[in-house]
Amino acid sequence: MKQFDLIIRNGTVVTASDTMHCDIGIAGGRIVQLGHDLGEAARVIDASGKLVLPGGVDAHCHLDQPMPDGLSMADDFRTGSVSAACGGTTTVIPFAAQEKGHSLRAAVDDYHRRADGKAVVDYAFHLIVADPTRAVLQDELPGLIREGYSSFKIYMTYDDLKLDDREILDVLSVARQEGALVMVHAENSDCIAWLTEKLEAAGNTAPRFHALARPMAIEREATHRAITFSELVDVPILIVHVSGKEAVEQIRWARNRGMKIFAETCPQYLFLTAGDLDQPGYHGAKCVCSPPPRDRSNQEVIWDGLADGLFTIFSSDHAPFRYDDPQGKKPGGKEVPFQYIPNGIPGLETRLPLLFSAGVNGGRISVNQFVALTSTNPAKLYGLHPRKGTIAIGADADLVLWDPQREVVIRNQDLHHAVDYTPYEGLRVTGWPVTTLVRGKVVAHEGELHAEPGHGQFLPCALPEMARPRYRTSGSCL
Amino acid sequence: MKQFDLIIRNGTVVTASDTMHCDIGIAGGRIVQLGHDLGEAARVIDASGKLVLPGGVDAHCHLDQPMPDGLSMADDFRTGSVSAACGGTTTVIPFAAQEKGHSLRAAVDDYHRRADGKAVVDYAFHLIVADPTRAVLQDELPGLIREGYSSFKIYMTYDDLKLDDREILDVLSVARQEGALVMVHAENSDCIAWLTEKLEAAGNTAPRFHALARPMAIEREATHRAITFSELVDVPILIVHVSGKEAVEQIRWARNRGMKIFAETCPQYLFLTAGDLDQPGYHGAKCVCSPPPRDRSNQEVIWDGLADGLFTIFSSDHAPFRYDDPQGKKPGGKEVPFQYIPNGIPGLETRLPLLFSAGVNGGRISVNQFVALTSTNPAKLYGLHPRKGTIAIGADADLVLWDPQREVVIRNQDLHHAVDYTPYEGLRVTGWPVTTLVRGKVVAHEGELHAEPGHGQFLPCALPEMARPRYRTSGSCL
Amino acid sequence: MKQFDLIIRNGTVVTASDTMHCDIGIAGGRIVQLGHDLGEAARVIDASGKLVLPGGVDAHCHLDQPMPDGLSMADDFRTGSVSAACGGTTTVIPFAAQEKGHSLRAAVDDYHRRADGKAVVDYAFHLIVADPTRAVLQDELPGLIREGYSSFKIYMTYDDLKLDDREILDVLSVARQEGALVMVHAENSDCIAWLTEKLEAAGNTAPRFHALARPMAIEREATHRAITFSELVDVPILIVHVSGKEAVEQIRWARNRGMKIFAETCPQYLFLTAGDLDQPGYHGAKCVCSPPPRDRSNQEVIWDGLADGLFTIFSSDHAPFRYDDPQGKKPGGKEVPFQYIPNGIPGLETRLPLLFSAGVNGGRISVNQFVALTSTNPAKLYGLHPRKGTIAIGADADLVLWDPQREVVIRNQDLHHAVDYTPYEGLRVTGWPVTTLVRGKVVAHEGELHAEPGHGQFLPCALPEMARPRYRTSGSCL
Amino acid sequence: MKQFDLIIRNGTVVTASDTMHCDIGIAGGRIVQLGHDLGEAARVIDASGKLVLPGGVDAHCHLDQPMPDGLSMADDFRTGSVSAACGGTTTVIPFAAQEKGHSLRAAVDDYHRRADGKAVVDYAFHLIVADPTRAVLQDELPGLIREGYSSFKIYMTYDDLKLDDREILDVLSVARQEGALVMVHAENSDCIAWLTEKLEAAGNTAPRFHALARPMAIEREATHRAITFSELVDVPILIVHVSGKEAVEQIRWARNRGMKIFAETCPQYLFLTAGDLDQPGYHGAKCVCSPPPRDRSNQEVIWDGLADGLFTIFSSDHAPFRYDDPQGKKPGGKEVPFQYIPNGIPGLETRLPLLFSAGVNGGRISVNQFVALTSTNPAKLYGLHPRKGTIAIGADADLVLWDPQREVVIRNQDLHHAVDYTPYEGLRVTGWPVTTLVRGKVVAHEGELHAEPGHGQFLPCALPEMARPRYRTSGSCL
Repeated sequence: MKQFDLIIRNGTVVTASDTMHCDIGIAGGRIVQLGHDLGEAARVIDASGKLVLPGGVDAHCHLDQPMPDGLSMADDFRTGSVSAACGGTTTVIPFAAQEKGHSLRAAVDDYHRRADGKAVVDYAFHLIVADPTRAVLQDELPGLIREGYSSFKIYMTYDDLKLDDREILDVLSVARQEGALVMVHAENSDCIAWLTEKLEAAGNTAPRFHALARPMAIEREATHRAITFSELVDVPILIVHVSGKEAVEQIRWARNRGMKIFAETCPQYLFLTAGDLDQPGYHGAKCVCSPPPRDRSNQEVIWDGLADGLFTIFSSDHAPFRYDDPQGKKPGGKEVPFQYIPNGIPGLETRLPLLFSAGVNGGRISVNQFVALTSTNPAKLYGLHPRKGTIAIGADADLVLWDPQREVVIRNQDLHHAVDYTPYEGLRVTGWPVTTLVRGKVVAHEGELHAEPGHGQFLPCALPEMARPRYRTSGSCL
Repeated sequence: MKQFDLIIRNGTVVTASDTMHCDIGIAGGRIVQLGHDLGEAARVIDASGKLVLPGGVDAHCHLDQPMPDGLSMADDFRTGSVSAACGGTTTVIPFAAQEKGHSLRAAVDDYHRRADGKAVVDYAFHLIVADPTRAVLQDELPGLIREGYSSFKIYMTYDDLKLDDREILDVLSVARQEGALVMVHAENSDCIAWLTEKLEAAGNTAPRFHALARPMAIEREATHRAITFSELVDVPILIVHVSGKEAVEQIRWARNRGMKIFAETCPQYLFLTAGDLDQPGYHGAKCVCSPPPRDRSNQEVIWDGLADGLFTIFSSDHAPFRYDDPQGKKPGGKEVPFQYIPNGIPGLETRLPLLFSAGVNGGRISVNQFVALTSTNPAKLYGLHPRKGTIAIGADADLVLWDPQREVVIRNQDLHHAVDYTPYEGLRVTGWPVTTLVRGKVVAHEGELHAEPGHGQFLPCALPEMARPRYRTSGSCL
Repeated sequence: MKQFDLIIRNGTVVTASDTMHCDIGIAGGRIVQLGHDLGEAARVIDASGKLVLPGGVDAHCHLDQPMPDGLSMADDFRTGSVSAACGGTTTVIPFAAQEKGHSLRAAVDDYHRRADGKAVVDYAFHLIVADPTRAVLQDELPGLIREGYSSFKIYMTYDDLKLDDREILDVLSVARQEGALVMVHAENSDCIAWLTEKLEAAGNTAPRFHALARPMAIEREATHRAITFSELVDVPILIVHVSGKEAVEQIRWARNRGMKIFAETCPQYLFLTAGDLDQPGYHGAKCVCSPPPRDRSNQEVIWDGLADGLFTIFSSDHAPFRYDDPQGKKPGGKEVPFQYIPNGIPGLETRLPLLFSAGVNGGRISVNQFVALTSTNPAKLYGLHPRKGTIAIGADADLVLWDPQREVVIRNQDLHHAVDYTPYEGLRVTGWPVTTLVRGKVVAHEGELHAEPGHGQFLPCALPEMARPRYRTSGSCL
Repeated sequence: MKQFDLIIRNGTVVTASDTMHCDIGIAGGRIVQLGHDLGEAARVIDASGKLVLPGGVDAHCHLDQPMPDGLSMADDFRTGSVSAACGGTTTVIPFAAQEKGHSLRAAVDDYHRRADGKAVVDYAFHLIVADPTRAVLQDELPGLIREGYSSFKIYMTYDDLKLDDREILDVLSVARQEGALVMVHAENSDCIAWLTEKLEAAGNTAPRFHALARPMAIEREATHRAITFSELVDVPILIVHVSGKEAVEQIRWARNRGMKIFAETCPQYLFLTAGDLDQPGYHGAKCVCSPPPRDRSNQEVIWDGLADGLFTIFSSDHAPFRYDDPQGKKPGGKEVPFQYIPNGIPGLETRLPLLFSAGVNGGRISVNQFVALTSTNPAKLYGLHPRKGTIAIGADADLVLWDPQREVVIRNQDLHHAVDYTPYEGLRVTGWPVTTLVRGKVVAHEGELHAEPGHGQFLPCALPEMARPRYRTSGSCL
C-alpha cells in the first residue's frame, strides 16, 4: 500500500507565519507529512509555480437562510458551497437564524435539514439569537454551545432581528459563562428608522439614499455601545463588517484600554464606495448592503487596519439576492424605495482573489497575513483550529493551489453562485485559485466542480480560546 | 424725587469678565447707573469689604414636582425659593414635567398653579418631555417654546421619564427647528436595570450599591449616544450633571470635532464620592443621586473642566427628599433596596458657597469664572440674559452682597429648605452670601427672609443664541 | 467744572460678557460712570447706531525690531501705532528682543529708545529670550519681570533666536518661580532645515515651497514637546500662532489631562491658505509667514477653536516687511529662494475688521467673544487688566466706536502701516472702527490721525493671575 | 546512510501560528521533514511531554560592547551566548557600536574580532550609528546594509551616542533609501539632564532617583518626536524598550493614522517597578536601566500591548554590568550618584522563562504569541526569517525542548552569564528550556554546555520586508 493517498509536490507552502518550499503528504484526508522526497503516493499533484494555501474559511456568509416577506436567498448550500470551492474557500460558517417567537434549536434543526447532503465544502453554523427568552438563555443556548455551536450573532438593527440593550447584555452574559463568542452587527436602529423617514418624506427613495440613511456616525455609536456592553459583562466580542474610520477609532480606543474587541471587515469596504449605489436606474440596488460602503479615504483606513492587525478576520458577508428577481432586489417585481431593498451582496467566490490581488500583490499585506486573515484566524476565532485554517501535521488537507500571477477579469458569468450579478463585474485581479481540495479530495479545478454535493461535512466548533475574557470588570459587583 | 431707589455703595462689583470698585444705582428694580458719587437715593446699602455679585441662577433644580409612587418633594416654591435666596440665588429654573399619557401644556399649567404667589425669587420653567406624541411635537412644544419655555430636558433613564432613541431624535428636531435648547440626562437605562438585577440577585441592596449599578461606563455610553444624536440632527445639546472623566472625555472628543456640546456639573461631583453612599446603616441613602458621585480623581477632572471652560454652567440639581420620611428616602417608611430610594440630594442653598470656597478661595477658578458658571452663563444659555445673570445697565437688580472671608460651618439647622439633612453637614467653607436682592429689593439678609411669598415673578425665556446650530450635518440628506 | 471730560452717548456698550445700551462718562482719561442721563461734559460724542468696544489689545506684533542681515521692519512705533489706532487697537505689545551674546536688559533699554515719544497708542513690551545665560536667568529676567516685563517669548526655530530643549526648561523655570508667562513659537527647527535642504536640492525654491518646508507635523511635534516641558516644570505656557488641526489636537489633549496650555491664533490662519503662497512670479512672498497658512479644513478647525474657547487670544503677529524692498521681501533687491524671504505679514490694522466680519457678522462667534479674544483676554493674560481690555468703572477710556454694518473693501492704499501691500487686498468686510480713543482722547477718526506721536504711554505689566501654575508635577522630585 | 542526522520525536511542535504533534527530521543542520514515522536517524531525541519551540531570537542585547570611562561589560560572546543557549535562545543580535569621531566600518570590524570563535549560538549585528558623517551616510552605511547589517539603532539620549533631530532625519533617509530598519531609543536627553541637575542640587543622588530623572513624560515626548520623523521621511521605525502607558498611547495614535511604527518591550517592564530601584543601601543600582521600570498599572498596559499585537517583539536589552565591580555598577569602586551608574540589567537567560510563565501559563498570551514575540517576529523584522525564527521545512534546526510544567526558582548561581546578580533573584517561574539545539546540534542541556565556542556563526541579514515604507509623505515635496 502506498504511504500517501496524495502528494502535493513542488509548491510554495504558506501558513499564517511561514512560507516554505516543500511537498505535502496526505493520507486519510489529513496532512501527515511535510518535507522533500516523501515517498510514494496514489496520486501526485504538481504545484510548481503555485502557492499552496490553507483553504479559505469564510466565517460570515448567508446561505439558504429563511427570509421574511416573500424574499429568498439565491444560494443554498449546494450553489453556495460550489461557489466557495471555486473561489478557494473550503469551510463556510453561515447562520442558523432564530425567528422571534420561535425556538433557537428549531432553527438549528431546520438549518441542518437545509444543509444535509448538499455542500461540497465543510461547514459550521453560527447562531443568530433574535429572541433571547429565558428558555433560550438558560437552556437552548448553553446546550447548543456545548454541542458545537459556540458563536452567535446579534443585531442592533433590523426589526425582525434586533435586540434591545438589555437583551444584548443577557446574551453576552451567557457567552461569558459558557465561553462562546458573540458577533455584533453594530448600527443604531432608531437612527436609521428616523433618517429613513426623513429621506422618504423628502422623496429621496432611490438606492443611493440607503447610504445616507446609515451614515458612519450611527455605526460608530452602536460600536461604542457594544464596546460598553462588552466592558460591563467583561467578555470579548467581535464587531462584524466594520466599514470605516469612525468605527475603527472606537475599536482602537477600546483596545487602548486593554479590552478584547475583535473586528472583521469585508471586500465591499475595500472595493466599493457609496458612489456604487448611485448607478443609472435601479442598478445601485446591487450594492445595497449594511453598513453601506463609504468612500476612498475610509477604504484606506480599512486597509491600514488589515495591515497593522486591527482586523482579525476578513469575511465576505455573502448575502445572495438576485437583482432581477421578485424574491430578490426587486421585491414583488418592483423597483422599491431603498429601505425595502433586501440588504446584501454576493461575494463568497471573489473574497480571496480580491484581497490577494490588491493586498498581497499590491504590497499592502504579506501573503502570511493574507492566510491569517482569510483562513487561520477565522478558524481559531470560531474553534475550528487546528483542524481547519492551516497547513500542519494532523490538519485536514483543505488546500488551495493558487496561481499568484494569473490575471483574471471578474465576470459574473464565470462565477458559480446563483446570483445574477457581481458588484465587481469587470474588475481585473492578479492571483487566482486553480485547484481546491477538501480533506484531500479535489473539489474544484479551474472553475469546474469535481465533487458531489454531500462531500462537505458539518463541523462542530470548540470553545474559542481567543474569546476568553480578561477578567476586569468595571462594575466590580458582578 | 430721589434719582435712585437704592444705591449699593463701596462694594467690589464682579461680573463674568470684570472686577471693579464702584457704586450701583438702582431704580425701578433695575440697575441704572455704575460709578462713584452717584447722587441721592431713597436707601443706601454699604457694601464695604464685600463683593457685589449678580444673583445666582440655578438652572437645574426640582421644586414641588409631581412624583409617582407616593413620593413627594419636600420643597415647594416657597421653601425652595427662600432657600435659594438665603444661598445667594435669585433665579431658579425648575421643571414642568410631562407625565406619560398626558399633555405637556397641562403640566405647564399645573406647574404655574404650584408656583403662583409662592416664590421669593424669580423663576422660569424648563419642560420635561416624557411623552413626545405627535401632538406634543407638532403643537404643544413649538407653541410653548414661543411662549417662553425654550428649554427642555429629556431622560435616557428612569422608566417613567425615559425616551427611546427615536423619540430623542424627534425632540431634538423640534429644538433645532424652533431654536430651543435640549438638556440630556445621559445614563443607559437598560444597563442600569441589568446591573441592578444582578446586584439584587446577589443580595447587594444597601444604598452603596446604587453607585455600582450606575458605573461611569454607562454614563459615558449614553453621553456618546446623545452626542451622536446631536450630530445627526445638527443641534447643540447640554449634558447635565456630568460626573467624571469618561463623560468629560466624550465631550472633549465631540468639541474637537467642532460640535457644540454644552456641559453642566454640580456640587456633588466635587464634594462627594461613592464612599459617601457607604455610611453606617441606611444613611448612605442621603447621598443617592444619579449619576452617583465617583471618586477623588474624578473630582479633579471635574475641577479641571470648570477651570478650563469645558463646563458652561454649575447647577445644584436640587432634588429635595427628606431622609426620615415615608414620602422621601424611606418610601412607605422603610429602608428599601437601593433601586427604590428616590434619587436626589438637596443643594440649592449650598451651591454657591461650596464652589466659592473651594474654587475661588482655593485658587482653582477666578471670581469672574465663578460668576460666569453660576449666574451669567445659565442666564445666557436659557434666554434670560441680559435681564438676569449680570451687573450691567438695564439688568434687573438681582444682587448678592458676598463676604469673601466669612467662615461658615454648614449645618442643616441653619439652612432654609424643608429637607431634614444636607450631605455637606459639618463642612467648613469660606465665603458666604450676606444680603440678597431681587429686582432691587432685599429678600434675604443674614439668613433671614425679608420678602413675602409672591415677590418672585415668572420669567418667560427668549430663544438662547448659544443654542444656535452649527449647520454641519453628517447626514447631508436632511 | 463739568463732571465729565467726555460722554459717549447712545452707544451699545460691549464687554466680554455683556451688551448694554448706556452712556459712558469719562474723566481724567478713565471711565468713571455708566448709565443714562449722566450729567454734563466738556464734550459729547454721539455713538447712536454704533457699538462701543474696549480698544483692541494686539498682544503679538513686531515693530522696529532690530533685524539681522540688512533687513529692516517697515513699521516703527509711529507708523505701527497709527495703523493700530486706525484699526481699533489701543494697546500694542511688541517685543524687546535679546540678541545672542548680548544682554537682555540692553535690548529693553534700546527698545525703549525706539518707542519713546513715537506711539499714539499705549504699549507694553514682551521680552524675547534668545540667550538664557546664567546672568539672564538669575538676574536680568527676574529683575525685568518685577519691573513690568512679565511675559517673554521663546523660539523653537530660527537660528538666531532658537533655544535648545534645556534652555527652554531653564526659561520656564524662571517663569514659574517669578510668575511670568512664556509664549512659545512651536516649530521643529531641525526638521525645517532638513526639508529645506531637500527642497533646495530639488530646485524647489519658489515662495510656495515655504509651506512644504514647514508641514503641520513639525508644528505638531514642537507643540507636543513644549507641552511636555510645561508639564515637567509645571508652569502654564501660551502656544502662539496656532495654524491648524494637528496642533489644536495636541492642545486639547493636554487640557484633557488638566494642563493649562493657552493658545493664540491669527487672521492668516482664518483667511489665507498655502495656496496664497503660490501666486504668479514672486508675489507669494507676500504671504510667507511661519507657521504657514494651511488649507480650508484647517481654517474650519481654527474657527471651531475660537468659538468653543480653545483659543484665549487672537493677535495679528504683525511683522512688517515691504514687498518691493531690499530690506524686505526681496533681500538685497533679489527674488530669493524661499528660505531667505523674511517671515511675516502685516496685519495690525486689519485684525479686528477681519474677525468681526467673518466671526461676528458671520455668526461664528458672539460680539462678546470678539471682545474677549481681541481685547479682554490679552489684557488679562499679560497683566494689563483691569486697566486695559474692558469697559468698566476705573478702566482707561480706551474705546472704539464701531459701525457693525459698514462695508469696506480692504485696500492697502487706505491702510496706515508703512508696508507696501496687504495680503487681504480686495477682501470685502462688514464692520469697521470709526473712532478710536486712548485714555479718553480721540486718536483716530474715520482713518484720520487726531493725536500726536507720544500720546501713547509705556505700560508696565503686572504678573498675570492666569499664568499661575497648577502645582502638579509629573517629576515629583522638584 | 541514515536519512536523517537527528529526529526529535513525540514533541508538541509550536510555531507562531500552529501547534501540532509530530516528529521533526533534521539533516545538514536543517529541518527537512515534519510528520510521523519519519524513518531512520543517526540520533533520536524523545520530546514527549515537551514543547518544541523555535529557538529564541534575542534582538536586543549588548555583549562585549566597548565602553567609555573604564567601564566594561561582564559578558563577551562566549559567556553571553552560553547564557543565551541555556535560556533557550539560539540567535542573538548585539550591537556594533560606532564611536563619535570614528568609522562605523571600523566598529564592525572590531566587533567581528570580538565575536570570532567565541559564540555557541548564531549571531547577527545591529549597527549603532553615533556619528552620521557624510562618509557614514553616503558610503559606509549603504555598503554595510548591503553586506548584511540591515538594522541600526540610534539614540535620542546618552551624550556619547545621541543624535540631534537633523542627524536622525539623515539616518532615517538612508534607511528608507536602502530598505533598512531603524531602532530608536526614545528619551529626551535635555530633559533628563535638566532633571538630573535639579535632583543633584537637592542632594537626591540615591539609585532610586534615576527613575525620577526619567519620568514617563520624557519617554512619551521622544516617542512622539521619533514618530514625527518617521512620518516626514515616510519610513517605518521600531521604538525599543517601551516602558508604559504614555509611550504606548503615542504608538497607537500613530497606527491609527496608518503609520508603521513597530514596538519592542522587555521583561523589566513586566516584572520590575521603580520601587525596585529603592532598595536598602546601594542595591537599587542593580535595577538601574533606561527607561526605568514604572509601576504596576504600567505593567498591565505592557501586558495588554503584548496580548493585542501592539508589540511586535520582546527582547531582553541584556546589558551586563557586575554589581560589585569598579568596571560595573560601582565605577571606580564607589557607590556613585545615580547618573553615573552604568545603565542596564542582565536578562538574556531569563527572558523566555519569565514571559512563558506569566504570559503563557498565566493565561495572558497564547503559546503561539509567545513564539511570535520571542522568535519569529524578531527573525522577520531583522531579515533572518525563514532561516531563523520558525520550525519549517528548510529552516535551521534551532530548537528548544521546553518543559511547560517545570517549576524553577530563579537564582543567579544557576545562571550562566558573567554578571554577579539577577534582578529576578528568587522569582518562581513555571516552564523552562531543557535542551537547546543550534543547527541540529545540542548546545545546551539541563543547564550544561554541550558545544564548543565557535559553534555559533555570523548571520548576514537580508533587508526586512516588514520595514517597507507606506509611501505616504506628509511633505509631498520629497
